[in-house]
Amino acid sequence: MAQHKNLITALAQGKTKELAKAITIVENELDGSYELLSQLKPKNSAQIIGLTGPPGAGKSTLANALLKYWTDQNKKVAVLSVDPSSPFNYGALLGDRIRMSDFYLNENVFIRSLASRGSLGGLNAKIIEITDVVRSANFDYILIETVGVGQSEVEVAGIADTTIVTVVPEAGDEVQTMKSGVMEIADIFVVNKSDRPNADEFVKNLRILAHSKATEWETPVVKSIATTSEGIDKLGEKITEHNLHIENSPDKKIALLTEKAYQLIQQRRMKDIDKNKLRDKLMSELSKTDFNLYEWIKKIN
Amino acid sequence: MAQHKNLITALAQGKTKELAKAITIVENELDGSYELLSQLKPKNSAQIIGLTGPPGAGKSTLANALLKYWTDQNKKVAVLSVDPSSPFNYGALLGDRIRMSDFYLNENVFIRSLASRGSLGGLNAKIIEITDVVRSANFDYILIETVGVGQSEVEVAGIADTTIVTVVPEAGDEVQTMKSGVMEIADIFVVNKSDRPNADEFVKNLRILAHSKATEWETPVVKSIATTSEGIDKLGEKITEHNLHIENSPDKKIALLTEKAYQLIQQRRMKDIDKNKLRDKLMSELSKTDFNLYEWIKKIN
Repeated sequence: MAQHKNLITALAQGKTKELAKAITIVENELDGSYELLSQLKPKNSAQIIGLTGPPGAGKSTLANALLKYWTDQNKKVAVLSVDPSSPFNYGALLGDRIRMSDFYLNENVFIRSLASRGSLGGLNAKIIEITDVVRSANFDYILIETVGVGQSEVEVAGIADTTIVTVVPEAGDEVQTMKSGVMEIADIFVVNKSDRPNADEFVKNLRILAHSKATEWETPVVKSIATTSEGIDKLGEKITEHNLHIENSPDKKIALLTEKAYQLIQQRRMKDIDKNKLRDKLMSELSKTDFNLYEWIKKIN
Repeated sequence: MAQHKNLITALAQGKTKELAKAITIVENELDGSYELLSQLKPKNSAQIIGLTGPPGAGKSTLANALLKYWTDQNKKVAVLSVDPSSPFNYGALLGDRIRMSDFYLNENVFIRSLASRGSLGGLNAKIIEITDVVRSANFDYILIETVGVGQSEVEVAGIADTTIVTVVPEAGDEVQTMKSGVMEIADIFVVNKSDRPNADEFVKNLRILAHSKATEWETPVVKSIATTSEGIDKLGEKITEHNLHIENSPDKKIALLTEKAYQLIQQRRMKDIDKNKLRDKLMSELSKTDFNLYEWIKKIN
C-alpha cells in the first residue's frame, strides 16, 4: 500500500518510469492492481483522443505531425497505440519518414504500444484501466491510436472524448460507404493525402453528409497532407474546439462514463470464464445425446 | 408447456407461421422464451451463412441471386436480415431490380428482418437464440445478412459456419486496406460488379493475399455480377465446398459453439444491468468529491 502511495505520487508528478510501471501492473493484473486503480485520481483535464482509420490512411504520420504540433506548444502528450501495423508499435524500429526517436527522447511525450485483444482487432482488454492510469499522470492529451477495421474503431469511440476518423480520397461512392456507423463515430474527419485527384470532390461530399447529420456538433472535415504537416494547425484547432464543446455538454461525458462502468462491470463478472476451459467443458458435454446449450448454461451458472 | 410442444412440433415440420411466432417470443423474451429455447432441437444440418460487406457492394442483389439458385434446386432457405439498408428489411417495399415478392410467396423461403442492436450496427441482441429457433425448423441454408461496418461483420463471423465477404473492385491499395481483420473473417470472398475496370487486377491481388494467408482452407475469390446472376453457380459450389470442409474440421464447430456459449453466459450475467439506470445512478454519485469508479463498481456488485 505504501508502495502504491509512492507510485501514485510519482504519477501525479508525471514521472515516466513509474507510469510505465503502473501500466504494466494494471495491464497484467499484477499484485495490487485493483488497489492501485481504486487510489488513482484521474484528471479530467486530459483530453482523450481516439485516432482511427484504415491502414494506409496515414494515421501514424498524422499522429506524428500532431505530436510535433503539441510539443511545440509545450504540451504533454501520451500515445497509446493498439494498431499492430503502426510504427508507434515498434519502439526503436524507425521508418525513413517517421522519426519517432525525436519523441522517445522528449520528456513531454510518453509512448506505449499495447497488444490488441484478438485477431479481429479489438482494443486491449485493459484499455479503460490503462487510460485511467495515464489520466492520473500529468498529460494534456492522450492519443489512442487504433486500426479502423472490425470492432476497435467502435470501441475507441466509446472511451475517447474526441474521435478522429482518418480517411483518404477515393471514388465517389466511398462517401456512401461510410454512411452507416462511421458517421456516428467521428467527431472530426481528416481527409489525408488531400493532394490526390478527386480530393476536393470527396471533401465536398463528406461535408454535405456531415452537415445533414449534424446535431449540436457538426463534424468538421479537415484536409491534410500529414507528410508535410499541411492542415495540422487546423486539426489542432478543431480538437480544441471539440473539447470546449463537450465541456459544455455533460451528456456526452456521462454517456462515456456509463459505457465505461458497463464495460468494467462486464469484465468483472466474466473474469472467471476462460474460453479455453469453456471449450474443453463443452467438448466433453457434446457426446451426450440430450445436450441442450441453454439448459447447460443455466446449470453451470 | 404443452403449447410449446405444439410449437416445437410445428417448427420441426417447417411451418412458417409458427416459426415467425417462435422468433417473436424469443426476440422479445416473452413468457416461456427460456423454456422454448431449452426444448428446441436445433439441427446441425442447416448451414449458417453470414453475408457481409459495405453498403453499395451489392449484398442484397447477391442474396437475391442465391435465393433463386437454391430454390431452383428445391432447397429451403431462411434469410435473417440485420442490415437496415437492405431491401430484405422492408417487407412489401420492392425495388425495381429486386423482386422479393417472388420469394415472399415461395413456401421454401422464410424472410425475417431484425433490428440491429445499436446505432453502430451491432447484430440483433438475440441473434444467437433466433438462429437456434430457425435451425430447429427445416432449412438447408440460413443466410444472415449484415452490413459490413463497425462490429456486426465481426459478430456475424462468430456465429456463421461460412462467412461471405462481398467487395467491389476499387483502387489497388484497397486490397491492402482489407489485410487486417476482414481477411480473418472471410471464408469466401465475392468480388461483385466484376465488370468494372480494374476488376481483374483487384481479383488477382486478392487471390495472392488469400493464398499467402491460407491455412487448411484457402479463401476462394469468386467474381460475380449479381444483377445478371453471373458467378452465382460458382459461389454456390464454394459454399457447399466450405460446408464439407468444416464438417471435417471439428475445431471450427467447437470454436463457434464456445463463442456462442460465452456470449449467452455474458448476456445472462448482464441482464440486470440497464444502461439508463446505470447512468442515473452514476449521475447521483458524481457530485461526491471522493467518487472513485473502481470502488463504486466493487460496492454495487
